[in-house]
Amino acid sequence: MNSHRIKTTVWGEFRHEKTDASVAAIYPDGMHETIARFLRPHADLEVGTATLDEPEHGLTADVLENTDVLLWWGHRAHKEVSDAIVDKVHRRVLEGMGLIVLHSGHYAKIFKALMGTTCSLKWRESTDKERLWNVMPSHPIAEGIGDYFELPREEMYGEPFGIPTPDELIFISWFTGGEVFRSGATWYRGHGRVFYFRPGHETFPSYHDANVQRVITNAVRWARQTVRIKDAAPQSAPLEAMPPETGPSLHRTPVSPRV
Amino acid sequence: MNSHRIKTTVWGEFRHEKTDASVAAIYPDGMHETIARFLRPHADLEVGTATLDEPEHGLTADVLENTDVLLWWGHRAHKEVSDAIVDKVHRRVLEGMGLIVLHSGHYAKIFKALMGTTCSLKWRESTDKERLWNVMPSHPIAEGIGDYFELPREEMYGEPFGIPTPDELIFISWFTGGEVFRSGATWYRGHGRVFYFRPGHETFPSYHDANVQRVITNAVRWARQTVRIKDAAPQSAPLEAMPPETGPSLHRTPVSPRV
Amino acid sequence: MNSHRIKTTVWGEFRHEKTDASVAAIYPDGMHETIARFLRPHADLEVGTATLDEPEHGLTADVLENTDVLLWWGHRAHKEVSDAIVDKVHRRVLEGMGLIVLHSGHYAKIFKALMGTTCSLKWRESTDKERLWNVMPSHPIAEGIGDYFELPREEMYGEPFGIPTPDELIFISWFTGGEVFRSGATWYRGHGRVFYFRPGHETFPSYHDANVQRVITNAVRWARQTVRIKDAAPQSAPLEAMPPETGPSLHRTPVSPRV
Amino acid sequence: MNSHRIKTTVWGEFRHEKTDASVAAIYPDGMHETIARFLRPHADLEVGTATLDEPEHGLTADVLENTDVLLWWGHRAHKEVSDAIVDKVHRRVLEGMGLIVLHSGHYAKIFKALMGTTCSLKWRESTDKERLWNVMPSHPIAEGIGDYFELPREEMYGEPFGIPTPDELIFISWFTGGEVFRSGATWYRGHGRVFYFRPGHETFPSYHDANVQRVITNAVRWARQTVRIKDAAPQSAPLEAMPPETGPSLHRTPVSPRV
Repeated sequence: MNSHRIKTTVWGEFRHEKTDASVAAIYPDGMHETIARFLRPHADLEVGTATLDEPEHGLTADVLENTDVLLWWGHRAHKEVSDAIVDKVHRRVLEGMGLIVLHSGHYAKIFKALMGTTCSLKWRESTDKERLWNVMPSHPIAEGIGDYFELPREEMYGEPFGIPTPDELIFISWFTGGEVFRSGATWYRGHGRVFYFRPGHETFPSYHDANVQRVITNAVRWARQTVRIKDAAPQSAPLEAMPPETGPSLHRTPVSPRV
Repeated sequence: MNSHRIKTTVWGEFRHEKTDASVAAIYPDGMHETIARFLRPHADLEVGTATLDEPEHGLTADVLENTDVLLWWGHRAHKEVSDAIVDKVHRRVLEGMGLIVLHSGHYAKIFKALMGTTCSLKWRESTDKERLWNVMPSHPIAEGIGDYFELPREEMYGEPFGIPTPDELIFISWFTGGEVFRSGATWYRGHGRVFYFRPGHETFPSYHDANVQRVITNAVRWARQTVRIKDAAPQSAPLEAMPPETGPSLHRTPVSPRV
Repeated sequence: MNSHRIKTTVWGEFRHEKTDASVAAIYPDGMHETIARFLRPHADLEVGTATLDEPEHGLTADVLENTDVLLWWGHRAHKEVSDAIVDKVHRRVLEGMGLIVLHSGHYAKIFKALMGTTCSLKWRESTDKERLWNVMPSHPIAEGIGDYFELPREEMYGEPFGIPTPDELIFISWFTGGEVFRSGATWYRGHGRVFYFRPGHETFPSYHDANVQRVITNAVRWARQTVRIKDAAPQSAPLEAMPPETGPSLHRTPVSPRV
Repeated sequence: MNSHRIKTTVWGEFRHEKTDASVAAIYPDGMHETIARFLRPHADLEVGTATLDEPEHGLTADVLENTDVLLWWGHRAHKEVSDAIVDKVHRRVLEGMGLIVLHSGHYAKIFKALMGTTCSLKWRESTDKERLWNVMPSHPIAEGIGDYFELPREEMYGEPFGIPTPDELIFISWFTGGEVFRSGATWYRGHGRVFYFRPGHETFPSYHDANVQRVITNAVRWARQTVRIKDAAPQSAPLEAMPPETGPSLHRTPVSPRV
């Protein structure tokens, strides 16, 4: 194993594909596997998968320890994801792991925990065309993407989107039915980078689209862990000489450990 | 009651003051009461208090419903704050209530939930002088504050501070011992405004300081609720005529309610 | 004159209205006068106008000194605006005056000087419908505006828009022809607040629209000057005792005034 | 020449070094040459220099065309830099060239043009110690830098610093005399990346410091041009079918070229 490759784990809920024939027709091995498959040919990536119904949702301590970038697709079963696992993933992101949240993952516990907001939006399961406008073409995630690209059919997600102001706004979507959406956005949280990318409703073949694949591949590289810093709240001695206490004498409470 | 006054609730942990004589000497009726007392004379404010050991921590549904701005000071007992109450306060902020988090409140559950990060920092219970530099003098929270103001003794909080990039950075502190800190910062979360303000260690009289009082008073006005919008994720009909479906026939799953 | 009223100056190029009958039909006294007329009834505003062909473009030292918020509509004659006047307006914004830039004012010298970027965009003089989505409903500029509002016909402006990342993004437009645009955005520059608002092509009656009028009125209040701080780069004595120089002796050049 | 190397041009005013013996003692071949010298050993960089007194200040069309990242140190002679050259550099940054502005370059015409603000600050030519705190350790520019690093003597620059809110704030400085400063900050402008880095007064050996060298080297890599996009404001045909004009007939002015 080349330790310089970006260790990438694609997490999928993997339920629709097992219960809905129309989804299985598009993603016979699961959406996570479709995503993993277009990432694997890239020599700088080392790609694994994990799914909800595996033990610990496939996100064991060892897997998380060996993940530089985690991708997340979930939808109907957000509530079945264990809070303990979400806490571990959250901590890993704050320590430096990248996280790419896809489509209905906007309501995943991990995304809501990182954003601190509702993450709600308007939606419509219809046959809107989606046109994603590239508003930050110099961003590494937009590399190779022109002024816009289109998905001939997608679920509509519309503003207002209940997120904190993105640190970087890369794509804004236009929908046939009359809505707009901030569909590609980043946030720095702790030492980790977070990217939300809108497309990917299970009944449409969006993860087979070349532009969607390019954006996700770019995002994996952008979000790769570059530092690993564990949480600490150190009591720190002065770096500079402190003046003698000259004011009224103070009763000082003994130092208590900080939670 | 004038409905146009800003309904302000000052929440205090109110424990140090009951167990530590040196704290009681500075804040005999509690820090929350000291803060409420300098806010009350302002005719546009209507000020109440709430504390940890009251039922529901003093934050009943009725109190929260009737609060435009909540101030929060906690320290040793963050863990004793009920998760259910934190969830309610969180939801109220996202709906539009302002929140002002003071000093050691950086580790309060409600602040961490809104930030999504560790909120950790360096610290030292010492006798540093703190000088707060005003880096955004046109901000309403800095109204009436000059280039800087000083607190002759304060606990040191130092960078790195584990927060998301502030939407607005208003004050940066200099400490005698050699550290700096982003000590006045805002974030927009949902429809609410959040302000974190660093000073206020319980063993120092910072809430008796005229500049600290001015900043907090300004912040209450800045953070006042201006809209109240409840969370919703509506399924939305198209606003524009949609083209007929011309592609391959799609099996459409019935609309499922979104969590 | 009540010194607490917001002194507002509406600047208009006022050329199209004199040479193009279809524009004159919509704005017989000029667009600036239409705008001034809907602002004047507000008791907290004191409203004047200025136009390109007046001496000093109507922006004399006295007018600028007595303006809290300046609105700017220009189009064909950007190049005729004197650089000296632009410099004065620029300095006033940095000192605290608010600036509201309307529609084709995106290419005004003053806007480009404040942004530092191209301010370019896609465009089409057509009959697109424009729907402005409200993505920051708690912002004072969005007060009273619902999820969206529509203009039945407007010139299209499309992304990419060559601006720095807005400090606050309030409106995103959807156009019939398939484009999106960041059509309401703010930037803090020096001690002044800047708001760009997209609608207002001269051949359409957008400044007669109630929602457009509401947004502009809100923006005047939001952008009002609250401080006035002149540029300075002071040589400053230490606030703290400095250690004696203990290193190798340094040749020190005499203090030269900083440009 | 390897086209994948980052073409880096170090621009120096190169005046102090020729007239002030104490500066020449520290930077005998000029500050620009000292900087170029620590960059050159990096195999991924291709490093040239340019100075004020060369024809076109060394920044000919050919040099600018072949520069991915430009570094800028100027001080006393900002006014001698030709406006025409500044315009060319400005345009190149907006097209994608990176720009690293050093120390007194905060008052360079090119930095002021990109920021749109005064860029003023407090200052003191003294022997303050500067301690630069790393507040964004996961940023590529902070790679290899710990919690802080120190410069035993530097000129003091203090807040308020007249800049737009940085897109990313990486370093905050502490000075012995009691001031703080945002001393490492980035802005995205057009398709180019801009980094301002505070240290580097000509009478101190800061560019011989290992940490300063590391930050600048990191910054060159971060700021490298990744796209090259020329300014355009295209008139665009609709992407979607437009409804027939059904409203009152409009006199339409012929399309005029946009300035």
